[in-house]
Amino acid sequence: VHDLEAGARLEVIGRVEGCFDERFGTPRQPGLTPDARAELILLPPYDHPDLLRGLEDCSHVWLVFGFHRNPARRWRPTVRPPRLGGNRRRGVFATRSPFRPNPIGLSVVRLDGLIHEPRRCGLRLRDHDLVNGTPVYDVKPYIPYSDCVPDARPPAGFDVPPRRRPVVFLAEAEAGLERCPGGFRALVEQTLSLDPRPAYRGEDPGRQHGVVLMGINVRFRVIADRVEVVRITPGEHATCS
Amino acid sequence: VHDLEAGARLEVIGRVEGCFDERFGTPRQPGLTPDARAELILLPPYDHPDLLRGLEDCSHVWLVFGFHRNPARRWRPTVRPPRLGGNRRRGVFATRSPFRPNPIGLSVVRLDGLIHEPRRCGLRLRDHDLVNGTPVYDVKPYIPYSDCVPDARPPAGFDVPPRRRPVVFLAEAEAGLERCPGGFRALVEQTLSLDPRPAYRGEDPGRQHGVVLMGINVRFRVIADRVEVVRITPGEHATCS
Repeated sequence: VHDLEAGARLEVIGRVEGCFDERFGTPRQPGLTPDARAELILLPPYDHPDLLRGLEDCSHVWLVFGFHRNPARRWRPTVRPPRLGGNRRRGVFATRSPFRPNPIGLSVVRLDGLIHEPRRCGLRLRDHDLVNGTPVYDVKPYIPYSDCVPDARPPAGFDVPPRRRPVVFLAEAEAGLERCPGGFRALVEQTLSLDPRPAYRGEDPGRQHGVVLMGINVRFRVIADRVEVVRITPGEHATCS
Repeated sequence: VHDLEAGARLEVIGRVEGCFDERFGTPRQPGLTPDARAELILLPPYDHPDLLRGLEDCSHVWLVFGFHRNPARRWRPTVRPPRLGGNRRRGVFATRSPFRPNPIGLSVVRLDGLIHEPRRCGLRLRDHDLVNGTPVYDVKPYIPYSDCVPDARPPAGFDVPPRRRPVVFLAEAEAGLERCPGGFRALVEQTLSLDPRPAYRGEDPGRQHGVVLMGINVRFRVIADRVEVVRITPGEHATCS
């Protein structure tokens, strides 16, 4: 009998290096931002290609990871999921909130290939929801016949993907995009269409917010249910929110 | 920044009380034994109905749990999955093997109701793959739009559910069944049709094995690809395998 009975000590097997630099702006679920890329870089002693043998065939993996950027506060028995507008309480075990008794997350992400370089071993990921630096505790292959339950009934309010808002790029943002890597527009559009703002907003409707994607500052505001990208400033390293 | 960066310490939030008394005989995946029942009994300070509020609507949950009955041995970079006949090696992260760097498991199980009794709070589960006493670290609702990926490509060899063998009950087993609880026949049939024997078998083909289900000893043998249930002995408490 293992000492898991009293509790488990998990080792970090790898760390995420990806496009979401801050907690604010990182999608709340995977599968919503197909152009979001990341690498999971394995740490010693787990950084050997042998551990990944057989994943070449595989399109999706589960990651078990830590919500390492949670603000320091204790879990509560109930939470207010952003999906429900932020004003309805649900039991923490009836939600996927990061504020839980054990702050571990579970995401299925698209596997885009394996990294087998000298001193750099890991997985190329896509369509993820992991903030930069996320510690990962386990990788498991996604097995549809046991993991996919199409007729499962989720808790009320979680039956459809979150609503998308239209995203428009203002002139200054368009100018900034020209100095950004290819695919950056799609990443901005997918990320901001989900409206990353917190659910409680007793604030000016046109207030500017900022997210940092791939190290690039993106300023936006939400007006009349539409997201306006105000400015994109590659090369500037300030963080903001 | 949380100390999850260095590793995580998980608390046991609850423990499984179910029909699979021993590791041997417990299915290797959930979703294959619809008559397998269990309760997840929450432990203090997690044993409050508030934490489950909203799960009433929900048909399936994820459990993150510990493989607490693993024999004490270190993980290896590669394993030989029983599904592949036990003679082909795969990287541990390309399998769902319980012998992994962090011995935590992930199963989607059917939720059959909530337990709200004085001093007994938890979840009624069905169609599970959890050995009795399993420590659970997290419960998350199953959300089809993000968890169900029907067109995901699993690693080679994991594309279809495991093969079932026909199960026949010999006369002595039929007699024993009469003193067993209702539904026990279905549980035996579902469990043994998966052939719980280890993949490596350099042994007599007709050798008898035993599993303990709901505290009841079940003896069986596999002959010519058919599982014969030899004896079912309710009330006898010996364990065997």
